[in-house]
Amino acid sequence: MSSSYGNNIKITIFGQSHSQAIGVTMEGLPAGFSIDMEALQVFMNRRAPGRSKYSTPRKEADVPAFLSGLVGNITCGAPLTAIIENTNTRSKDYDQIRDIPRPGHADYTAHVKYGGFEDVSGGGHFSGRLTAPLCIAGGIVKQILAAEGIEVAAKIKEIGGSSTEPAKAIEAAMSQGDSVGGIIECTVTGLPVGIGEPMFDGLENKIAQAVFGIPAIKGIEFGKGFAAAELCGSQHNDEFYFDGETVKTKTNNHGGILGGISSGMPIVFRVAVKPTPSISIAQNSISYEKGEAAVLSVQGRHDPCIVPRAVPCVEAAAAIAVYDLYLYRYRYQNK
Amino acid sequence: MSSSYGNNIKITIFGQSHSQAIGVTMEGLPAGFSIDMEALQVFMNRRAPGRSKYSTPRKEADVPAFLSGLVGNITCGAPLTAIIENTNTRSKDYDQIRDIPRPGHADYTAHVKYGGFEDVSGGGHFSGRLTAPLCIAGGIVKQILAAEGIEVAAKIKEIGGSSTEPAKAIEAAMSQGDSVGGIIECTVTGLPVGIGEPMFDGLENKIAQAVFGIPAIKGIEFGKGFAAAELCGSQHNDEFYFDGETVKTKTNNHGGILGGISSGMPIVFRVAVKPTPSISIAQNSISYEKGEAAVLSVQGRHDPCIVPRAVPCVEAAAAIAVYDLYLYRYRYQNK
Amino acid sequence: MSSSYGNNIKITIFGQSHSQAIGVTMEGLPAGFSIDMEALQVFMNRRAPGRSKYSTPRKEADVPAFLSGLVGNITCGAPLTAIIENTNTRSKDYDQIRDIPRPGHADYTAHVKYGGFEDVSGGGHFSGRLTAPLCIAGGIVKQILAAEGIEVAAKIKEIGGSSTEPAKAIEAAMSQGDSVGGIIECTVTGLPVGIGEPMFDGLENKIAQAVFGIPAIKGIEFGKGFAAAELCGSQHNDEFYFDGETVKTKTNNHGGILGGISSGMPIVFRVAVKPTPSISIAQNSISYEKGEAAVLSVQGRHDPCIVPRAVPCVEAAAAIAVYDLYLYRYRYQNK
Amino acid sequence: MSSSYGNNIKITIFGQSHSQAIGVTMEGLPAGFSIDMEALQVFMNRRAPGRSKYSTPRKEADVPAFLSGLVGNITCGAPLTAIIENTNTRSKDYDQIRDIPRPGHADYTAHVKYGGFEDVSGGGHFSGRLTAPLCIAGGIVKQILAAEGIEVAAKIKEIGGSSTEPAKAIEAAMSQGDSVGGIIECTVTGLPVGIGEPMFDGLENKIAQAVFGIPAIKGIEFGKGFAAAELCGSQHNDEFYFDGETVKTKTNNHGGILGGISSGMPIVFRVAVKPTPSISIAQNSISYEKGEAAVLSVQGRHDPCIVPRAVPCVEAAAAIAVYDLYLYRYRYQNK
Repeated sequence: MSSSYGNNIKITIFGQSHSQAIGVTMEGLPAGFSIDMEALQVFMNRRAPGRSKYSTPRKEADVPAFLSGLVGNITCGAPLTAIIENTNTRSKDYDQIRDIPRPGHADYTAHVKYGGFEDVSGGGHFSGRLTAPLCIAGGIVKQILAAEGIEVAAKIKEIGGSSTEPAKAIEAAMSQGDSVGGIIECTVTGLPVGIGEPMFDGLENKIAQAVFGIPAIKGIEFGKGFAAAELCGSQHNDEFYFDGETVKTKTNNHGGILGGISSGMPIVFRVAVKPTPSISIAQNSISYEKGEAAVLSVQGRHDPCIVPRAVPCVEAAAAIAVYDLYLYRYRYQNK
Repeated sequence: MSSSYGNNIKITIFGQSHSQAIGVTMEGLPAGFSIDMEALQVFMNRRAPGRSKYSTPRKEADVPAFLSGLVGNITCGAPLTAIIENTNTRSKDYDQIRDIPRPGHADYTAHVKYGGFEDVSGGGHFSGRLTAPLCIAGGIVKQILAAEGIEVAAKIKEIGGSSTEPAKAIEAAMSQGDSVGGIIECTVTGLPVGIGEPMFDGLENKIAQAVFGIPAIKGIEFGKGFAAAELCGSQHNDEFYFDGETVKTKTNNHGGILGGISSGMPIVFRVAVKPTPSISIAQNSISYEKGEAAVLSVQGRHDPCIVPRAVPCVEAAAAIAVYDLYLYRYRYQNK
Repeated sequence: MSSSYGNNIKITIFGQSHSQAIGVTMEGLPAGFSIDMEALQVFMNRRAPGRSKYSTPRKEADVPAFLSGLVGNITCGAPLTAIIENTNTRSKDYDQIRDIPRPGHADYTAHVKYGGFEDVSGGGHFSGRLTAPLCIAGGIVKQILAAEGIEVAAKIKEIGGSSTEPAKAIEAAMSQGDSVGGIIECTVTGLPVGIGEPMFDGLENKIAQAVFGIPAIKGIEFGKGFAAAELCGSQHNDEFYFDGETVKTKTNNHGGILGGISSGMPIVFRVAVKPTPSISIAQNSISYEKGEAAVLSVQGRHDPCIVPRAVPCVEAAAAIAVYDLYLYRYRYQNK
Repeated sequence: MSSSYGNNIKITIFGQSHSQAIGVTMEGLPAGFSIDMEALQVFMNRRAPGRSKYSTPRKEADVPAFLSGLVGNITCGAPLTAIIENTNTRSKDYDQIRDIPRPGHADYTAHVKYGGFEDVSGGGHFSGRLTAPLCIAGGIVKQILAAEGIEVAAKIKEIGGSSTEPAKAIEAAMSQGDSVGGIIECTVTGLPVGIGEPMFDGLENKIAQAVFGIPAIKGIEFGKGFAAAELCGSQHNDEFYFDGETVKTKTNNHGGILGGISSGMPIVFRVAVKPTPSISIAQNSISYEKGEAAVLSVQGRHDPCIVPRAVPCVEAAAAIAVYDLYLYRYRYQNK
C-alpha cells in the first residue's frame, strides 16, 4: 500500500505538510538497541530546512518526539513511533493552488485521485517535508547497520550537469527565480555476501522502490548503470579474484549486486533529482473552476536546489531497504 | 519475498533453467476474461530463443500449458497456473561453473547465499529463462489492460550506444565472441489519471521493482530521467493546458507520473540492459575448490545481445506493475 | 508483521501502556469521508475504563487527537494517525513484575522474546490499553460501513457461564478479588453476497486473525461453530430459497459464510474471553533474579471482568476485517 | 490475497477439483534440506481419498510431482513447486449444480462472486481436494520443524459429539445417506519460548488464519478455549514454576500461548469440523435459471465424515503457520 515499506523492518510514514504533525512508525526493530539521539539529530539536521542560503527559509526544528517503542533511549521491541509537530506553517501561501495546480507537482494528480478532498496545503502528503520522518527511520536504521559494520553514505555527484561547480549552478538558478536538479551517488559498504532475495525482492528492486519514495527522484542506476548499455560484455564483466581468502572483483561495474544479491563489493548507485518544481517564474497552468488557462507564480518558500537536502534522504531510503533484506540473512541457512 | 510480486494481482514465478518445468501462478485475475491464446503465443514468441540469428540456438517451444484457473480459455477467478516444460536442457555444459563462477552472473552470490545448494545448471532460478513465465503473466495482463484501453509497448532505443545501427553493433560483438548491451524504452498509454499510490507504491516505485526482476537490467529512468538533473525547473516543468475538457501537459518531461500518480499523459521510461555476461572470450575467475585463480571460457549457448528478447519482458513487467496499481482505482472514491 | 493488519485498509497500532502516547495509523481510507467525531467518542466511551463499577478505576479520557489524514473532519486520502496521550500512569505499580511474571499475562513470553528489554510497565505493548487505538480505527471503519448499509454489532452472550445473570457473576468474582470470563456474540448485517477471498483470506480467516488481536480472546466460532461438530449434514445444511428475488437460507447455521465468502445472510460469530488474568488473590510464580519460586499479588488497577469493555473491541476488529475484504468487491468483475 | 499464506515461508495453492492439476508453490524454504519423500508420501496418504470405507470412493494416487525447487531431493533455495495431476475426474456428476447450488457448499457464494464464471466442477477451487497441495507443503514443513525438534500432531477428539464411538457415529450417518461432523485437537511441542509476533501476527491469529483455510472448519479454540469463559481467573491462570532451569506452568489452560507468543508449554488447540455438506438425502435449494425452488440430491462421491481425512490437513496448516513465525526468531535479538 501507499506509505508503508518493508517486510522485516516495516515503516509507515504519515502526515501532511501542514497537518498537526508528521511522523513514522517502525515495526520489527531489534529490542535492546540504544539509539544515539545526538547522532540522530545531527543526521536530521542534514535534511532540515533553513540551514543554508540555498534552502527554503521555512525553519523547522525537526526534533523528533518519541511516542512509543523505547524505554529511555533503548528499543523495547514494540513499534516505535516518532513525530515532529508542524509549527511554522503558512497555509495561506497555498490558497491559490486549490484552483491552479503547480506544474511539476502532484497537485493535479492528487486532485483527481482524491476527488478534490486532498490536503492542498503545502503539497499535503506529497510534500518534501515528509522526508523528515523518512530520515528519522533511516537515521535509526543507519545506526543499527553501523553496529553491524555496514555503512551507508551518499554525496552530491553533479548539480545542473556540473560535478565541479555545484554552488555556482545553484546560485545561477536562484538568481533567476529558477531551480536546478542534480545527481546523488550512494554507497553501501560492509554488507556481507548473499543479501538480497531473487527476482522481485533483490537489492536493486527494493532500493529502487524505497528511493523513488523521495519526491523528485526520476531515475536510478546501479554500478555502471546506463553506461553499461554502451559496453561489451568483455568490458563490463567484473573478474573474480582472491584477496587473501576473500573473493573480490577487480572492477565494480556490477555495483556490488549480481542477481539482486550482494557480492561483497561496495553497493554503488546513483539517482537523478529533478529541479525543484516550485519556481517564482510565472508558469502556464489551468484553473479547475474556470475551466480555462491560468498563470501561476509559486510564492511560498522553496529551495532553488533540493539536491543537498536530498542526500541524507537517499541514505535513509537505502539504509531501510538494505536492512530489510539483511534481516533475511538466516533464512536459507538450514540451521 | 523473493519471486512473487503484487498486491492486487499477484504473480509467483517458479522454476530453474533445467528443472522439470518453469511457470507462474497468477492470483487476483478478473473472472470471465477470455484469453486470446494465439495472441499470447505471438507475444511469447517475441521473447523465445532461437528465433533470430542473434539469439541463443537453444530452441524451446515455450508453449504454456495451463494447469488451473481457466474453464476453456476463460478465467474462472481461481489462481491461474501455467507452466512450460524444460525439454532441451544440456546440463553438462554447466559442469565447469559448479567450481568456477562466471563473471557478471549470479553464480557466486547464489553460491554463498544458498550455502552451495543452489541449482547451478543453466543459472538455476537466476537464468534469463525465467522471463518466459514472466511473459506468460505479462502477456495475459497486457490483454486485460488492452480491453480497458491501456496499451503497453516497448522498443529498442539503443544498442551498444547506437540508436541507428543496432544490428551492426550486435554483429560486431558476436564476431568477437563478445556481447553488447542497450537501452529499451517503454510507453504506457490510455491509463486514466489518478493511478499510483503515494510514497512507496507509486508508479515509479512499483514499475522499477518489477522491471529489476528482469536479469541484466541495471538502471531505470522516467520521463527526462537523468537528463532532468541537468535542467532548470523552468525547462523541466510541464505546463498544464486544456485540450477540450481534457487536462494535458504541453511537454512530457515528467513521463506521465507526478507524485507517483498517473497524469493522463503517456508513461515513458527507459531501462539500461547490460551486455550478456556469457561470452566465449576467456575470463579470469576463481576456483572454489582449489581456492585459487582460474580461467573460464563460457561455452553453453547464449545471446550476443539480450536486448531484443528483453523488449517483451519489459512490457510484461510494466503491464503487471501498472495493472496491480490500476486495481486500486476505486479505493479512494467513497462510494 | 506484528502490529499492523490489512491489505486494502491497513492499520498499524503503536504504543505501550505507559508510553507517552498510544495510537493508530490507517492507510487506504476513502477520501472525502466525514467522520462523525461525536459518534466516534460515544463508541470510544463504550471501551473506556472507569465508566462502571466493574471496570478498572484508571480513568483515561481516551479522546483521540488527530495528527494527520484529515482536513477538518473529512478524510483527505493521506494516512490518518490518531493518538491518545497516556497521562494517568502509575508505573510504580509494576515494579514487582520486572522480576516476577504475572500468571496469565504476556510478561514472561515477552521477557524471553525481547531479551529483557521489553517495556514491563503496565504490560507494555501487550496491555489491554492498546485496544483503545483499535477502537479508534474500528469506530471510523464502522461509520464507513454504516454509510454502505453494513452494520456491525456485538453483545455479551454469557459471563461466567451464565447468560442471565452477568452482573451477579461479575460481582461474585469481584468480591473475592477474583475475575471472570465470558462469551461475546457479534453480528454483521447488510454485507452483500460475494465478499471474502478464497482459502486463506476468507471472512473466517481474516475475522479470526483480527479478533485474536484483542488480548484475552481464546476462541472463535462461526455460525453453529463447535455445536456443528455434533450435527448431521441434514441438520446443519441451510437450505436455499427465494425471498422475492433475494436468495436466502431458511436457517443460518453457516453464520453467513460459505467457502469463506458472504452469503448475504447475517454473519454471526462468537468469541471466548478468558477471565482477566490480573487478580488480587496471591498466585505462585517465579523470580527471574533469584531463580526460584515467588508469590505475586497483582496490585495495580484491573477489571474483575473484561467482557463488557471487550464488546466494542470485537466490533472494531470485525469491522476492520470485513471492510478490508469489502474493498476487494470490484476485483473479480471484469469491467 | 486469496490462496497464498505466509510472510517468511510463503505458500501459494492453485488448482480446481477437476483442472488439469492442483499444486503448491513454496517460497522461503531453507536451502540444503533433504526431503524424505517416503515420509512425505506416508503423510499424504493419511489425507488421500479411497483409503477407508468411510471416505469417498474417488481414488487418486495423490503422488506429488516436483517441478522445481529441488536438486535431487534437496532444496536449492529456489521456489519449490509440486503438483498432482487430476486424472480420475467425473465432471458429469456436477452438471446439476451449475443451476442448483448445494446447501452448505460454496456453490452459491462463488457463483455470485465470480459472476457465473466460477469452475463449478467438483466445487472448483473450493473443493476439499485442494487440501492435497496444502498437505504437500505442510508435510515438508513438518519435516523441517521435526529437524528442529518441533513436532506437530493432531488427532480426532470427537465425532458427532462422541469421543468414544466415532466409527459408530460415522456408520450411523452413512447408513442414512447423511454425514456427521467432529472435533480435532492439535498439539505442537518443542517450540522454543518467544515465537509469535504481537497483536495481529500472534500464534493464535496466524494458526487461526491458516486453519480456516481448510474447508468445513467453523471454529477454533486455544487451551481451555470456550470453557475458559466459564472460569474465574484464579482457576484459569497457569502458575509459573522452575523445572530445573526451565520455566514451566503447572497447568496449561493457556494452551502454550500468552500474548500471542509461545510459552514453551505445548501449544494446544481444537477445531470444529462441520458435517460434510454433500449428502444423498434430498434437499431444498433453488434453480438460478428458473428463478424458483428446486430439489437437489447430491450424487457424486463424498465422505460421510471428513474428520479423519482433515486430521493431517490441520497438522499441515498448523505446521506452516508455526514455521512462518518461527523464522522470525532472530529478529528481535540485536546481534
